[in-house]
Amino acid sequence: MQMIHQKRRADLVTWMARNSVSVVVIEDTEGRRDPALRYFSGHPCDALLLITVTGHAVLCPWDNNLAEQRAQVDVIVPYSEFGRHPVTAVQLLTERIGVPPQSRIEIPSQTPYPLFLTYVEALFGYNVLCRKDGGAHEEIERMRSIKDLLEIEHIEKAAAITDTLIDQLEKQVRSGKIKTEIDAALFLERSAREHPLAERCGFETLAAGPSRSCFIHPFPSCTASPFGTEGLSILDFGIMVEGYTSDVTLTIAAGKLTTAQEKMISLVEKAYKASLGLYKPGIATKEASAACDEVFRKAKKSMPHALGHGIGLEPHEGPAIRNREDNQWVFEPNMVVTLEPGLYDAVHGGCRLENDILITEKGNRVLTKSRIIRL
Amino acid sequence: MQMIHQKRRADLVTWMARNSVSVVVIEDTEGRRDPALRYFSGHPCDALLLITVTGHAVLCPWDNNLAEQRAQVDVIVPYSEFGRHPVTAVQLLTERIGVPPQSRIEIPSQTPYPLFLTYVEALFGYNVLCRKDGGAHEEIERMRSIKDLLEIEHIEKAAAITDTLIDQLEKQVRSGKIKTEIDAALFLERSAREHPLAERCGFETLAAGPSRSCFIHPFPSCTASPFGTEGLSILDFGIMVEGYTSDVTLTIAAGKLTTAQEKMISLVEKAYKASLGLYKPGIATKEASAACDEVFRKAKKSMPHALGHGIGLEPHEGPAIRNREDNQWVFEPNMVVTLEPGLYDAVHGGCRLENDILITEKGNRVLTKSRIIRL
Repeated sequence: MQMIHQKRRADLVTWMARNSVSVVVIEDTEGRRDPALRYFSGHPCDALLLITVTGHAVLCPWDNNLAEQRAQVDVIVPYSEFGRHPVTAVQLLTERIGVPPQSRIEIPSQTPYPLFLTYVEALFGYNVLCRKDGGAHEEIERMRSIKDLLEIEHIEKAAAITDTLIDQLEKQVRSGKIKTEIDAALFLERSAREHPLAERCGFETLAAGPSRSCFIHPFPSCTASPFGTEGLSILDFGIMVEGYTSDVTLTIAAGKLTTAQEKMISLVEKAYKASLGLYKPGIATKEASAACDEVFRKAKKSMPHALGHGIGLEPHEGPAIRNREDNQWVFEPNMVVTLEPGLYDAVHGGCRLENDILITEKGNRVLTKSRIIRL
Repeated sequence: MQMIHQKRRADLVTWMARNSVSVVVIEDTEGRRDPALRYFSGHPCDALLLITVTGHAVLCPWDNNLAEQRAQVDVIVPYSEFGRHPVTAVQLLTERIGVPPQSRIEIPSQTPYPLFLTYVEALFGYNVLCRKDGGAHEEIERMRSIKDLLEIEHIEKAAAITDTLIDQLEKQVRSGKIKTEIDAALFLERSAREHPLAERCGFETLAAGPSRSCFIHPFPSCTASPFGTEGLSILDFGIMVEGYTSDVTLTIAAGKLTTAQEKMISLVEKAYKASLGLYKPGIATKEASAACDEVFRKAKKSMPHALGHGIGLEPHEGPAIRNREDNQWVFEPNMVVTLEPGLYDAVHGGCRLENDILITEKGNRVLTKSRIIRL
């Protein structure tokens, strides 16, 4: 494990040297989560990480006990030494490390403007960068979008557990053991927590029975309403292994469906197939998304969300897979992404089918086996 | 319900008029959550809200069906009309509303610096403000820290459910039905989801048995490890009613304790009492925090986190209750806050006691009945 974090940092350091950046600051805190912390250090959350172009990694954790157990870095300095303020920590650590004046220090791209001003003032004599395009954090997003072998291994494990749970869930819905949205969501949560390899569900499970499946993201995420009863039910969940989450959605179509419901299902399946063929290296992700939109457009329907996204340490990460002009992502080998066409109707409910796809050298491999289940 | 959102907006509009702010922009999106959206509109999440000094509220929701059901605003415009980009939406809506040139438009204080630059460019001819101190969003934080009667009612309901669940949980631990951290956490999650008044748990329940209670925030938040067995176990959870969450922590002290464990418990209880007396109007919150620190300091211990915080639509919101010079909060009537002294030891485990406190005209009222439970 130590090796992989060092290797990832070494890749970033190469980029830093080429781009004359002396220090990259990564912050994970309430309201500004950044899994790049875990990616580069192994420490899961609530800390500040400084990576220097000289190859050092300094971690300031909020919880020192947790860091001693988990972090794979060169130095751990308790955050409390800096009054737990990121600007104070960066200012004093930069001095302590001996970063030369005028150096370029790149702070997180999500730094709020008022905090940015505080950084600039505190780091007087340095060149403070806060960039979205072309900066270190865009490079980190790009790096993270291409999974290394250990990451793919984690996601494959998550996918295998996900598949087993889909099968078990189908059985329990058929047998009447799972009757409500809560039953479905908590069956998954307990299974995830109890599984020796899984940490937990990767995000809040969305369980929407026929009365709520018209919502893209039902609110609340699950209720005591019936699930798997006549009509369309949607279940969107992920299983997390070593921080990496799967992300699938299955639709349960039960009882006698309306013509409109049958039409939605066949359109979603058609769009799924049309797009999947375009999930391969060298294809712009917006092309795959356009293929889906075209299927729906011909039927005078439209999809109110993107076709997919990368998964990994976040349930949504690069690449974006949507049909928008400013989307410049291209599929590359070892990206792991979702494919999730869906249609929603206030009267007839919703239908979404989502699987996780590994982009390979020649095409793709579908990692999960989610499906539209007919009862 | 409609009335209360209008009333809250009217209060903000008064502030806006006094401070020459023409438009306040509120954004709730993945990575930048802001419950002020729900506070002012009733719409729970994933939307942009514009409040104008002329008293209009325009909502751009990601999910239009949800908005039609929930939002209490003047106008709903689908976010898709603006390519779901906040800057485009603010730019075009500002034109549509006819906001006069040179007006001051205040964007969210958490706007990342790169996005801030995009706003400034797109809103050429307007005066774009992004302020932490002295701005609209600080005023909103202040407004939200003083609860109105409807908010207190929601929190009281959440507190009552919380107390019932603490009692039920104690019974189930004693009877051996709850054996693991997962058992404890999922008992709470299911109870919350099934309760007709509760939406869900207010945040991820932290369940740490004796092997993990030394962590302030154990990671993962619960595992298959034993809970309530010999030593100190910590359970930190909240119940959400209409978006408002309680936040309590109980410690279960089981079997024969070490001298160090007994000492931790008595110090935490002593610090709790010493601080509670200072939870009253007119007292600086850092004074209450200093009283706790003093109890621990005398015993050569220290607490690695703040003494408390406000609760409401967020599990952590204003006022801050910590012993730091820059903390300027003063207790005021109708604030609802936590009091949560804790001590942690890598060998002996941790002990934390947390209850929710309503500040009244003359002092305080403890809303929840969390405690240190001896088995």
